[in-house]
Amino acid sequence: MPSLTAQDPNFEARCRDSFNRQPAMHLIGATISRLEPGFCEVELIRRPEVTQQHGFVHGGMVGMIADSAAGYAAYSLFPADATVLTVEYKLNLLAPANADRLLARSQVSKFGRTLTICSMDVVAVQADGRELACATGLATLMCLLGRPDAPPQK
Amino acid sequence: MPSLTAQDPNFEARCRDSFNRQPAMHLIGATISRLEPGFCEVELIRRPEVTQQHGFVHGGMVGMIADSAAGYAAYSLFPADATVLTVEYKLNLLAPANADRLLARSQVSKFGRTLTICSMDVVAVQADGRELACATGLATLMCLLGRPDAPPQK
Amino acid sequence: MPSLTAQDPNFEARCRDSFNRQPAMHLIGATISRLEPGFCEVELIRRPEVTQQHGFVHGGMVGMIADSAAGYAAYSLFPADATVLTVEYKLNLLAPANADRLLARSQVSKFGRTLTICSMDVVAVQADGRELACATGLATLMCLLGRPDAPPQK
Amino acid sequence: MPSLTAQDPNFEARCRDSFNRQPAMHLIGATISRLEPGFCEVELIRRPEVTQQHGFVHGGMVGMIADSAAGYAAYSLFPADATVLTVEYKLNLLAPANADRLLARSQVSKFGRTLTICSMDVVAVQADGRELACATGLATLMCLLGRPDAPPQK
Repeated sequence: MPSLTAQDPNFEARCRDSFNRQPAMHLIGATISRLEPGFCEVELIRRPEVTQQHGFVHGGMVGMIADSAAGYAAYSLFPADATVLTVEYKLNLLAPANADRLLARSQVSKFGRTLTICSMDVVAVQADGRELACATGLATLMCLLGRPDAPPQK
Repeated sequence: MPSLTAQDPNFEARCRDSFNRQPAMHLIGATISRLEPGFCEVELIRRPEVTQQHGFVHGGMVGMIADSAAGYAAYSLFPADATVLTVEYKLNLLAPANADRLLARSQVSKFGRTLTICSMDVVAVQADGRELACATGLATLMCLLGRPDAPPQK
Repeated sequence: MPSLTAQDPNFEARCRDSFNRQPAMHLIGATISRLEPGFCEVELIRRPEVTQQHGFVHGGMVGMIADSAAGYAAYSLFPADATVLTVEYKLNLLAPANADRLLARSQVSKFGRTLTICSMDVVAVQADGRELACATGLATLMCLLGRPDAPPQK
Repeated sequence: MPSLTAQDPNFEARCRDSFNRQPAMHLIGATISRLEPGFCEVELIRRPEVTQQHGFVHGGMVGMIADSAAGYAAYSLFPADATVLTVEYKLNLLAPANADRLLARSQVSKFGRTLTICSMDVVAVQADGRELACATGLATLMCLLGRPDAPPQK
């Protein structure tokens, strides 16, 4: 993987601020646990509210954090005056998300002016710290220039 | 599309009961609005909690209800003594989910003993009732025999 | 499906000409059997050369004609001075391609200035004319403006 | 990646024999250039016959060798008395296949009794030996037990 450089030196604050303005991420309790140029990790702690009928984290939640990690992995490389759009993603669910802590990691595979491709991996962190692969996928993100993500400041 | 027949005459109660035992669906406020053999529609009403930073329903929520609709479209055709697993899905997001009501519809394209393939479409219902295409996708579901979804009754 | 209109009145000749300049399509023996604005059907006749070890048409060939149909479904809607790029596609193989004639059909689901999304379906035409579903998928295509597909005329 | 072990000590001959019985691979000129338990590399040399209108290797050919590499990466882990079926795959095309030699590599991400998930990467080998990423994807393969791939020996 060639090392990736952020165009916007303020990328971390910009990404975290954008994430924090998403009520849906607050609802499910997801947070950004790591962020680097072209890389994002989103953490989800198991609470009863995010599970399915067998007590595992719901597959839809796994998809939500994977998709979100991909969005911010790409967005970290965008210029300041741009927003990010998910064009599409594909996710393979490999094992039930049976752990108290999930980490969705996404890495930019190919950065482009218009389209950016990210790989996504979700792991279930076991009590002993081991990580079990839970899901793997690919996402295509689009850069919309001239449309800042943040609302204008007063 | 050949007409599909449910093997389990009790399929509707079985699907709705399974859906209702998923705390994650309660958290986001999704409900099954229509169910037929090989078809499921999941409804999501926009509340601030399920939006992203621009006030649209979060793309991850769109994915969650699409995936869920596919799961129950497939599950409706399964024998009573089986559970359903999402193997993988792919979703293209076509337009922002800018509406007070989203409907995720999934139809079984190919039913198989082990694997079932479903198409998924999410529409944003406008104030005047028109439906705008919001997302389209495909999902692969697996039938696990001999593992009833519901907990044993006392 | 809203009816789709070609911007380029000459779209059919432009698409067929582009297709015919692809040696790979000649190698496998694929042809465009139907073309409308936003729709393309590619035909492949079974010859021993395109089969796999059991005598069915090779799955890779099924993918090739599906992808090609999607490209030309999208390209039919593009302006004359543009070329088409496959961003990504996803294909579910539903049944072995056991027939002497395959048809890959692709329909534009969402046309956009930059990205166009197409559904793809491959059917195996039986001796009695019945069509069996062989594969289904989705593709994302990109429009590159100002890069005509055809070489400059002398 | 946990190291993967072949159940069938004869896996290499079994895979190469199966590949060689596919006329479609002969038609396009693809060969297996490397094979290990859970890993397969398929090579395609550019000839005019496998190109598209701009002289690059046709995207459909890229898909064919990626899909084939995934099939044999999975098949290498299967028991001797089984065959492999592609359930679905998704491929992102990252750059034009502008090189005289393409390598499609696939690695098993998750091996399962019924379903096996593989990552796929296609690189374009430049004249100086550098590898440029050309495509990346994921595939789901199915193991069909009790159906040997090879015809019965006389």
